[in-house]
Amino acid sequence: MEEYIERLRRGTLKMHALENELPPTEAVSVRRAYIEEETGNKFDTVGRYSVNIERIVAKNCENMIGAIQIPLGVAGKLKVNGEYAKEDYYIPLATTEGALVASINRGCKAITKAGGADVRIQRDGMTRAPVFAAKNVAHAMDIIRWIESNKQVLKDIAEATTSHGKMKDILCFQVGTSVYARIEFSTGDAMGMNMVTIASERIAQKVSQETGATLVALSGNMCTDKKPAAINLVLGRGKSVSAGVFLSDDMIKETFKTDAKTMMEVNNRKNLVGSARAGALGFNAHAANVIAAMFLACGQDPAHVVEGANTITTVDQMEGGVYVSVTLPSLQVGTVGGGTGIDTQRECLSLLGCSGGGEKSGDNARKFAEIVASAVLAGELSLIGALGAGHLARAHQQLGR
Amino acid sequence: MEEYIERLRRGTLKMHALENELPPTEAVSVRRAYIEEETGNKFDTVGRYSVNIERIVAKNCENMIGAIQIPLGVAGKLKVNGEYAKEDYYIPLATTEGALVASINRGCKAITKAGGADVRIQRDGMTRAPVFAAKNVAHAMDIIRWIESNKQVLKDIAEATTSHGKMKDILCFQVGTSVYARIEFSTGDAMGMNMVTIASERIAQKVSQETGATLVALSGNMCTDKKPAAINLVLGRGKSVSAGVFLSDDMIKETFKTDAKTMMEVNNRKNLVGSARAGALGFNAHAANVIAAMFLACGQDPAHVVEGANTITTVDQMEGGVYVSVTLPSLQVGTVGGGTGIDTQRECLSLLGCSGGGEKSGDNARKFAEIVASAVLAGELSLIGALGAGHLARAHQQLGR
Amino acid sequence: MEEYIERLRRGTLKMHALENELPPTEAVSVRRAYIEEETGNKFDTVGRYSVNIERIVAKNCENMIGAIQIPLGVAGKLKVNGEYAKEDYYIPLATTEGALVASINRGCKAITKAGGADVRIQRDGMTRAPVFAAKNVAHAMDIIRWIESNKQVLKDIAEATTSHGKMKDILCFQVGTSVYARIEFSTGDAMGMNMVTIASERIAQKVSQETGATLVALSGNMCTDKKPAAINLVLGRGKSVSAGVFLSDDMIKETFKTDAKTMMEVNNRKNLVGSARAGALGFNAHAANVIAAMFLACGQDPAHVVEGANTITTVDQMEGGVYVSVTLPSLQVGTVGGGTGIDTQRECLSLLGCSGGGEKSGDNARKFAEIVASAVLAGELSLIGALGAGHLARAHQQLGR
Amino acid sequence: MEEYIERLRRGTLKMHALENELPPTEAVSVRRAYIEEETGNKFDTVGRYSVNIERIVAKNCENMIGAIQIPLGVAGKLKVNGEYAKEDYYIPLATTEGALVASINRGCKAITKAGGADVRIQRDGMTRAPVFAAKNVAHAMDIIRWIESNKQVLKDIAEATTSHGKMKDILCFQVGTSVYARIEFSTGDAMGMNMVTIASERIAQKVSQETGATLVALSGNMCTDKKPAAINLVLGRGKSVSAGVFLSDDMIKETFKTDAKTMMEVNNRKNLVGSARAGALGFNAHAANVIAAMFLACGQDPAHVVEGANTITTVDQMEGGVYVSVTLPSLQVGTVGGGTGIDTQRECLSLLGCSGGGEKSGDNARKFAEIVASAVLAGELSLIGALGAGHLARAHQQLGR
Repeated sequence: MEEYIERLRRGTLKMHALENELPPTEAVSVRRAYIEEETGNKFDTVGRYSVNIERIVAKNCENMIGAIQIPLGVAGKLKVNGEYAKEDYYIPLATTEGALVASINRGCKAITKAGGADVRIQRDGMTRAPVFAAKNVAHAMDIIRWIESNKQVLKDIAEATTSHGKMKDILCFQVGTSVYARIEFSTGDAMGMNMVTIASERIAQKVSQETGATLVALSGNMCTDKKPAAINLVLGRGKSVSAGVFLSDDMIKETFKTDAKTMMEVNNRKNLVGSARAGALGFNAHAANVIAAMFLACGQDPAHVVEGANTITTVDQMEGGVYVSVTLPSLQVGTVGGGTGIDTQRECLSLLGCSGGGEKSGDNARKFAEIVASAVLAGELSLIGALGAGHLARAHQQLGR
Repeated sequence: MEEYIERLRRGTLKMHALENELPPTEAVSVRRAYIEEETGNKFDTVGRYSVNIERIVAKNCENMIGAIQIPLGVAGKLKVNGEYAKEDYYIPLATTEGALVASINRGCKAITKAGGADVRIQRDGMTRAPVFAAKNVAHAMDIIRWIESNKQVLKDIAEATTSHGKMKDILCFQVGTSVYARIEFSTGDAMGMNMVTIASERIAQKVSQETGATLVALSGNMCTDKKPAAINLVLGRGKSVSAGVFLSDDMIKETFKTDAKTMMEVNNRKNLVGSARAGALGFNAHAANVIAAMFLACGQDPAHVVEGANTITTVDQMEGGVYVSVTLPSLQVGTVGGGTGIDTQRECLSLLGCSGGGEKSGDNARKFAEIVASAVLAGELSLIGALGAGHLARAHQQLGR
Repeated sequence: MEEYIERLRRGTLKMHALENELPPTEAVSVRRAYIEEETGNKFDTVGRYSVNIERIVAKNCENMIGAIQIPLGVAGKLKVNGEYAKEDYYIPLATTEGALVASINRGCKAITKAGGADVRIQRDGMTRAPVFAAKNVAHAMDIIRWIESNKQVLKDIAEATTSHGKMKDILCFQVGTSVYARIEFSTGDAMGMNMVTIASERIAQKVSQETGATLVALSGNMCTDKKPAAINLVLGRGKSVSAGVFLSDDMIKETFKTDAKTMMEVNNRKNLVGSARAGALGFNAHAANVIAAMFLACGQDPAHVVEGANTITTVDQMEGGVYVSVTLPSLQVGTVGGGTGIDTQRECLSLLGCSGGGEKSGDNARKFAEIVASAVLAGELSLIGALGAGHLARAHQQLGR
Repeated sequence: MEEYIERLRRGTLKMHALENELPPTEAVSVRRAYIEEETGNKFDTVGRYSVNIERIVAKNCENMIGAIQIPLGVAGKLKVNGEYAKEDYYIPLATTEGALVASINRGCKAITKAGGADVRIQRDGMTRAPVFAAKNVAHAMDIIRWIESNKQVLKDIAEATTSHGKMKDILCFQVGTSVYARIEFSTGDAMGMNMVTIASERIAQKVSQETGATLVALSGNMCTDKKPAAINLVLGRGKSVSAGVFLSDDMIKETFKTDAKTMMEVNNRKNLVGSARAGALGFNAHAANVIAAMFLACGQDPAHVVEGANTITTVDQMEGGVYVSVTLPSLQVGTVGGGTGIDTQRECLSLLGCSGGGEKSGDNARKFAEIVASAVLAGELSLIGALGAGHLARAHQQLGR
């Protein structure tokens, strides 16, 4: 080890090149030791990981020195009445926010007791939107007209790059001399960003050749990836999924110590009117908490919590109770690729019965999306209930700190 | 163990009560074994964690069954010229997105070579906004006028609940019969949500007593916590921090294989105009990626990536090069509390020299904020450079999958 | 007259019923006299209108007492290189904002001298989005699936209500138990709101019958009519139209006393970055001013200025000058119906050669849209130029007050 | 006349210079005749205006050729219980949208019968936000710190430019090297844009001198003037005003043929949830219609309808009825300056008892704001009622066209 550290010190070996000379575990150890020496810092626990890192150093993380550990709790069981998820599930949640698992757990119990969460996926497609420069406004329009007249050509080009992806559509947008082509793909059980990016590059090349458009950037931010954006709230991205449950007056009283009218009022004044005045693109209580905890547990991209936070929560007072729903217009998930193959994450996906590719391509990712939406519903129910009952601050004092 | 599992099976012991009877590690083992048995699933790697969980089961995660592991890489060194962070840092990044660490690393090198990132915090304060119901519009106005005339009274009440927090201000907003009081606190080195929530509850009680306002929810979504919202983009939340660097034409060519004009054009057409047409509240390339990776490494709340994604990136073409900046209006971070005390996360904060409370309260959290902003700058530089040079899809193909 | 006033006083005649008993001019006079008497106010000038009010009292304005007069100025000529507008036009502008006509005039001259404004319409369709209530999330999805499978049926029903309108598409959106069907129509030379509303009612009835959906409101705000909304910025509403012009360095210097770099900087820091940080859905200098002045002159609905304000302005520095563009995603205009038939307004539409229906249905409305976009470009050019040259406040002092 | 036309034809006289040689009415006639000749168009009605144009040609409109006439109707009486408006008013409405006056009228009657509209102004201040360029991020922060430490100095400078305006505050925002100073003024009975622009220029000069900041544009779009922007929705601009009324179950049934539950449901699914999913910054039914009609009648700037459209409407089901409210965060109005002095408009302001300056400066503008908000409430009530009762399309068919 000392020899490699010496070379790193001298600059004759680059940190990122360690894996070229050493097996992964040793490369990671040397690198960690070098950083420790350089900085006088200790990485005792970071170094004591237990996952197999062979694929990780090749696919997930350069310059690896170890692993971070995030506590994993479970909530549930949660009964889900979806088109893909149709059982009771323990929900895996990786979080450090005290009271969160307990809160979601309370929501899960209420939903399960009420017969389960209805859940449906409205649409499903991942997007990438290259931006092109045109010479002028007329040229911009020519480019758009060409694309709109040649979608089948572009579809063929795109689908030659992938065995799982299917191009669904291209929407064109113009701003002066900029043309944005929002390309949408079915991506099977993968979240699909890479698949779509690669296919989009080919499409972009073809568009450039045929129209004289200059490709400026493969992503022109109308995708929109990992930024809060109304386009995702309006048109959706990834899965658009909605879950709901009816709770009777008795159940509301028993589980949440509040009543239908109060739950509706909390939701209206907070999630609808409060978010409205805040200029928000998310109308929910804490969807991001649930999404983040499930995403970390199950190997999803944590930056996609941004789009998940576009969730809209509704509470309809009805005869004899309330119907509570959550709608996630832009939930980006996958059960293959990304972080889903890391041992701990794969174990969590397995707990939900959706690790790896589905029997029918796309079914596992959709099943997972249905479960996430149902868990978000559990989280919303629980927090709205707690706010209604005035419990929030007390819960934080006892469990959080 | 079998005895406890038996009781869990029978329902005579609740999962969450295991810690009442067993030491943490055993409680977690029993629970995990029980879930394994119940579901026929295996949690081999989840169970092999190495962090000390004594505090975790009490403060961070209920119903714990183990831990998730996220690969940790390092980028850098990154030179930071802040008012709190004034050294060269290795940047810890927990991620599963191939090519991300390599990309940030390239940005770090460019910045460091250019003399470091300028970085400044414009404002600093955590917010919570309870919502009250008034009887009518006139009453709503009376409530607001009372609050505005009694800020000192409310400040005294609020500060009695905390040793570190200082109330900075209360902004009142009205929508019909709903009154939102956005209470802002200095929270020292803590991210501060719990501190502010507890103080806000006291304030809310006082307001109710004095004005007849009905407290509907301790959070009325004008805080705004963990939802995309313009109020955070406009007014800021947590730290509002900005980082920038000048890159000469030579450096742009050498490091990024592109030029000043192209970088500016990529930024304009993608981050500004593209985000504009998308109805976005974030005008950046992939700030959320960098923030998520640092947040996971350093024990921050991953749901706060939502607000971090409000970042605005600018590229000014100047004599002899470009000045590139990032502005994060709403970066919520802490170096004490939350997940910061977990062993692996604490080691990462230590790498940056900001684990725990600062010498002067708040200095460590601000130092950490400055480093995060600088790392986001590195990420933006690198991706804008790659897009400019047409590298994006190729990078994904080689490293991503 | 006294007799009618007496009956109004006694309440035996209702104000709105005057037209049932008297010819329009007399009815209006009586009503005006009555209000004058009732309030001790005088309406001398309001009463001295010169337009023919026969149709107005039937179609445009109930309880009429006279007319408001808005000063009408002209700017131009403005050369337009559109697909429908291909000449030089004097631009009619009804405004009370000092300096506005002069400013637009300056922009017109620059554009015309530069060879005219390129202008293109990207899409064209008016929308209405009824909202339905479903029983639960699954039912909501059933409703959407039914609509998506029966578009031809709905198209036939819709088109039976109108001779000019053609249904283009229906986009469905779900939020929990609410289903929004955004129905889009080609509406010929009419702005089209009424046409679309009537057709949408029939569609809504059919959807209700077939699916058990409850129609809650014929407009569910995803249209979106007369509210600022990202859906219009993203997807467009009415006409989506873009205009641009290249100005050489010499022309910039001569006309605007500034230079290419400054114009680009003003646009970037103000229209792009400033609007970004403001959480805006409009990225322009003062598009609403120009749109309002043309709308008032030409009988358009002034509340549609709201959607017009979604304009995005860009300035691209290019070899030898700048290319300046405006993009109006949601410009709602018509040359028949609404206020277009009032004498003064009709005279202004005639000035542009687009009063009444086009030779080919829709051509006049599209021609008018192209001219409006070109005039907005003139306004943007002029204000950006003035800001660049530091003239803004001085112009206001001299001309405005 | 022919002589002047001849000179115009030859280009030896400029159109805008006619007022230098001729009295206003003749100048306008010559210009109109010239345009008629040039274009072969006729302006018979445009030329037959009855307002005094002496001030108009100097202050409101360059290149005037006549006037546009907009039909003026009245609704009411409307009882207003404000702090400034405390009577019953006929509401003047200039509109060409059939059914609008009738609809508002119905709302006025309901409100008046219910005892009048509560109305309150929460805040009052007009804003302008110059944008400065800094050398780098650190310099930007220095500029902000200087401004924040020198507000009194800047206030003195600003107030030296105006007899009516008082500087209230300056809020600073930074994006990289851009600094935005949002300067807020009390502007008495004037809408105040010009006053604030002039004062802001002086402030900007001082800031430049003292800090080395480069003034880029006197308006940096964080004002935000005449663009849809969350900053106005959140912080307000001009007047932030709210109006509300309680309607009993009987009144709802009698006037609107619907019930409390339905009105609440219409408002929730349309104005709150529909606007949410549309990414809107306005949560109302048709506030812009009412605001536009009153603005045109009363000489306000029609481009400010954009900000008025930020209105949020709420319906709270309560014991025995509903409480309906509207909140207009950004209503920009004045009773002096702009178009308020034109004869027809002045007559309408007089009808409301608020033409010209108030006894106490600002009281007339605030009174007018309270009346506008109450009229918007009337419009919302009426349309929500009509939607609830399913009347919307029928109303359009009978009255609209």
